[in-house]
Amino acid sequence: MFRLLLEKHDRELMKKNNRMLVFDMILKCRPISRAEIAKKTGMSAASAGRIVADLIEFGLVKETEQYSSGVGRKATMLDIDVDAFIAIGIHVDRNVVKVGLVNLDGQIIAEEKRHMRKEESGPSAVADHAADLVRRLLARHPLGSSKLIGVGVGLPGIMNTAEGTVVFSAQLEWRNARFAKELEARLHLPVVLDNDLKVKALAESAARSIGTEGTTALVSIGSGVGSALIIGQQIYRGANNFAGEIGHSTVDPNGRLCECGKRGCLQTYITDLAMLQEANQVKPVSDMNELLEMMRSGEHWARNIIERACTYAAVTINNVVCVYNPDTIILTGEFIEDHAGIFEMIQQKLAELVWGPFGGTFRVVRSQLRDKSVMIGAARLVLQQRFDQGLDISI
Amino acid sequence: MFRLLLEKHDRELMKKNNRMLVFDMILKCRPISRAEIAKKTGMSAASAGRIVADLIEFGLVKETEQYSSGVGRKATMLDIDVDAFIAIGIHVDRNVVKVGLVNLDGQIIAEEKRHMRKEESGPSAVADHAADLVRRLLARHPLGSSKLIGVGVGLPGIMNTAEGTVVFSAQLEWRNARFAKELEARLHLPVVLDNDLKVKALAESAARSIGTEGTTALVSIGSGVGSALIIGQQIYRGANNFAGEIGHSTVDPNGRLCECGKRGCLQTYITDLAMLQEANQVKPVSDMNELLEMMRSGEHWARNIIERACTYAAVTINNVVCVYNPDTIILTGEFIEDHAGIFEMIQQKLAELVWGPFGGTFRVVRSQLRDKSVMIGAARLVLQQRFDQGLDISI
Repeated sequence: MFRLLLEKHDRELMKKNNRMLVFDMILKCRPISRAEIAKKTGMSAASAGRIVADLIEFGLVKETEQYSSGVGRKATMLDIDVDAFIAIGIHVDRNVVKVGLVNLDGQIIAEEKRHMRKEESGPSAVADHAADLVRRLLARHPLGSSKLIGVGVGLPGIMNTAEGTVVFSAQLEWRNARFAKELEARLHLPVVLDNDLKVKALAESAARSIGTEGTTALVSIGSGVGSALIIGQQIYRGANNFAGEIGHSTVDPNGRLCECGKRGCLQTYITDLAMLQEANQVKPVSDMNELLEMMRSGEHWARNIIERACTYAAVTINNVVCVYNPDTIILTGEFIEDHAGIFEMIQQKLAELVWGPFGGTFRVVRSQLRDKSVMIGAARLVLQQRFDQGLDISI
Repeated sequence: MFRLLLEKHDRELMKKNNRMLVFDMILKCRPISRAEIAKKTGMSAASAGRIVADLIEFGLVKETEQYSSGVGRKATMLDIDVDAFIAIGIHVDRNVVKVGLVNLDGQIIAEEKRHMRKEESGPSAVADHAADLVRRLLARHPLGSSKLIGVGVGLPGIMNTAEGTVVFSAQLEWRNARFAKELEARLHLPVVLDNDLKVKALAESAARSIGTEGTTALVSIGSGVGSALIIGQQIYRGANNFAGEIGHSTVDPNGRLCECGKRGCLQTYITDLAMLQEANQVKPVSDMNELLEMMRSGEHWARNIIERACTYAAVTINNVVCVYNPDTIILTGEFIEDHAGIFEMIQQKLAELVWGPFGGTFRVVRSQLRDKSVMIGAARLVLQQRFDQGLDISI
């Protein structure tokens, strides 16, 4: 049968009222005049005006000093009060928890972080730390009239976002952890969680104002390797929220044995650990900085390792381009961000690999939000989900 | 900014009237009762009933003999007249043009095909042939009260669907051909065109009743190699409609030189031509059947070639799985469909390659529609697009 409208989507849309539609329109097109809202929504000027008056009264929308630059009568422009809604964004990584209060504009208005020792890295201990940080933040920054609408968490690994569980995280050494429930019990706020790279991609895409027609792929290389895709400002998840898990994609079917038991998985070539293991077959190397230093000082074996990693990074990006056809590739992760010259080396190798017709169809950029991106993306996810459900703004 | 609804989408939705919504609902859920329609759309029973009466009068909807199986009062069920709308589906390949009349159910009600010689394979000559076949079909099968709403064309290569042009087709040896315009001039009907594998995936996904939550990836191996993705019954296109063009994805950065000038492109390992070129280094082999026959008769070099192709096919599918996380993989193309045992050989190699967490997340199936699939998919595309634009059913 032909799809016309999704049934679920239909129902949700039908529930959405005009007030929500006007709020959306201002959020997307701000600053915007009342006349433009009426035109873009197809409402009458009177209806649009009445709804705008309500939104101003609720403190969600404000008039600004700006005037439209077009011909004709000058109009008072409308903007969102970006602090009207706040979401808490939490980034859980191997040895650190970071918490931020994030507004509608994706800005962090306050943040806290805590390093954790190995022995306090279980789901329950991390939930304790995160909840404690949230309470401290809210004590330091009382939100006043802002509406705190929920908590978003980004973590490394495979997440069941619908159930709020960490299915499997090699980095955290967690398996089937009901982490959203753990946090909800402590904070009494709704919690959504997702893979760190997926929310990072969401944040980076939004920060670059990539619109509803855009397709952004994020590729991250560092202690792990992964990717994420944003289509029309939404995370692409696939059937099980596994989309983008490229660490075990095959780059050489006759290659090195991976911890998963297969040969030639991408992660056996380009993660920090893989490179350091290889380096240590030649001489003792304790970290990536040391390995890069050896390359720069002219050690050929060190250059071999780094160059091969960059080649496989370029192969990976090329393959992501062939499959996804994105307009923007965000190239991120410690391997790229912590070491000068790696971004350029990968770009150079990529230029040699890209097939003619794909030339010029995408740009490769760095992360803009760096170590804030997972916090911001996790908060954006919760804001987005609450809005999609038809956030009650009639209060 | 947070995406709530796409602006363009909003506007189109706002234009859609309740009549369209009811028609959609019957199309998706048929057979369905008036009471269910009211419940699912949120309309009153009186409104739903009035609209159904209109649709029956227009000949689009009909009452059936069936009754609901639930408790309570029995209800007359409603169904679509699947022949109310007909689209013409055209499949253009290297040496053949096929034309079919396709109804709302994706069934071919009549078809014609013509083989073409090399010298008549330019865009203009092919458009002449296709238009001629359409006229013959319509003469043989007058459509009566059915509404002929347009023409869809599936062709190999890179298509600009928005402009109706064949950007580049290695198989057809066309470049920047305004083929939709050529056909429109001859047929005086709206024409949409798209890549053959994309519309094939659309048809196969629909034929399997994969719903709005489904994610289907099609991988085709034969004279060419390519893939396509269907997300929620829609073709995923990426930024330039290039998504899925995996022929020049890299499987071995130190591998064989490809005609594109790069090393180790997938198509240098698994297309018919690539395998036959290699085979001919050992002994004269004229076609794939002969090569397969040699493998079966125990020639090791022939087995080497076929096994390597199957290994790279499995690598490709594994990588598509990692990136897309589909629930269904349709494995198609002449290499799989024309030779017994290849489908199984690829599946066996794939089982060895798939990373643990992805195990059981997808099924690999064969094409159901075989050589009809591009015609059906091209017709479905035009029907889908016309419906999404809000097909005028008020006449």
